Amino acid sequence: MCSRPAPREPLRRVAVIGGTHGNEMSGVHLARHWLRALGELQRPSFSAVPVLANPAATAACRRYVDCDLNRAFTGAFLTARAHPDDPYEVTRARELNQLLGPKASGQAFDFVLDLHNTTASMGTCLIESSHNVFAMHLCRHLQLQSPELPCRVFLYQLPGEETYSVNSVAKSGLGLELGPQPQGVLRADLLVRMRALVAAALDFIQLFNQGTEFPAFELEAYRNVSSVDFPRTETGDLAGTVHPQLQ
Amino acid sequence: MCSRPAPREPLRRVAVIGGTHGNEMSGVHLARHWLRALGELQRPSFSAVPVLANPAATAACRRYVDCDLNRAFTGAFLTARAHPDDPYEVTRARELNQLLGPKASGQAFDFVLDLHNTTASMGTCLIESSHNVFAMHLCRHLQLQSPELPCRVFLYQLPGEETYSVNSVAKSGLGLELGPQPQGVLRADLLVRMRALVAAALDFIQLFNQGTEFPAFELEAYRNVSSVDFPRTETGDLAGTVHPQLQ
Repeated sequence: MCSRPAPREPLRRVAVIGGTHGNEMSGVHLARHWLRALGELQRPSFSAVPVLANPAATAACRRYVDCDLNRAFTGAFLTARAHPDDPYEVTRARELNQLLGPKASGQAFDFVLDLHNTTASMGTCLIESSHNVFAMHLCRHLQLQSPELPCRVFLYQLPGEETYSVNSVAKSGLGLELGPQPQGVLRADLLVRMRALVAAALDFIQLFNQGTEFPAFELEAYRNVSSVDFPRTETGDLAGTVHPQLQ
Repeated sequence: MCSRPAPREPLRRVAVIGGTHGNEMSGVHLARHWLRALGELQRPSFSAVPVLANPAATAACRRYVDCDLNRAFTGAFLTARAHPDDPYEVTRARELNQLLGPKASGQAFDFVLDLHNTTASMGTCLIESSHNVFAMHLCRHLQLQSPELPCRVFLYQLPGEETYSVNSVAKSGLGLELGPQPQGVLRADLLVRMRALVAAALDFIQLFNQGTEFPAFELEAYRNVSSVDFPRTETGDLAGTVHPQLQ
């Protein structure tokens, strides 16, 4: 069975975001690169916009300056009256909401890719929070590009929970999380992989825009069941680690 | 040929320091552990003192709060009149100089081990800056504990350069630098290795204190020849990375 995944209209307004966390260097470096070389993000039916999401945190090579930008796109933050004492990231979230949104409006960008790294040795993780058929087809397309590499799908957002990530400003989006890479460090292998994944994602949007139908599929996806903390001492210090043979 | 390496007197005042950089977790975790369990640092002829060097940076899980503590043990910082606006690490360097020094005085600690991590995949690096025969014998002893593991000696301090590290407060010292480990992350394999190296170093001091003679040896050591930056764009951004096959 083949079908053309929703949405019905071609996607024209697409953004690729790096530096949402300022010390996750694959996206930081690629966003800077694309801001100098826009051609790599162009396809016949659209031109994706590169965005360096958190310039102050990127300059400081830190995850954030005042608070986590990727938790700042809530209705409360975006609609509150601006104040000089607002955290930097809240002000920046409002700016990005103007650029890519407004959130939940018809004017919002059609699709956003948000580029992240993790220190965990998880390979590629596709973080999907919009639960729509289009994004799932994109995940499948990305998995098929390099079937030999681990590329797992994580359904991030809980049903009914208010969205708060930069992706949530657009109509739909996908997070790419690559690891392992220390914060502030740029590994060439992950940079090459991230760049290839973004190219493949833009190629998929182009295929969709030109009316391609995609076969139905079954896909394994992960979701959060519960969190398990490390064993701790009475004062909260770690009393154990991951076993060397498991890490 | 055998000889008893200088110094001539047994070493009684020994410290093991973690958290000089607050996000290098092997030493942070071990210092916290030893502060609760002093017995592990005791030997028949001495009891090593565990020190968490930078508590504020450790609490924030950052390398430092205001400036690099491991560059703050200069004569200028240590002897200047204290001022409420002094950087946190300068104040802390003065406190540690009181605890472990005063630097270059007869009262200073005999030996200090300072525990660090790096994101570089270098295994174990022994950072030696006091250029004395005792420390070189200790390096040799540590190498012989696990000859199958990479354990290189780096002669850090340039001749004639003013010393500025926490080690420089004591009469002699050695830095242990283990990697790869991301900042803020605790890997069990590196934790086990660091703990074993510290135990072996204390065992060596015990052997020395009880009059053991050590055979002469030849040892390969590294020193800094020059620094090579990455290729960069006109605006200072990276224009290249380490090749994936080399990293």
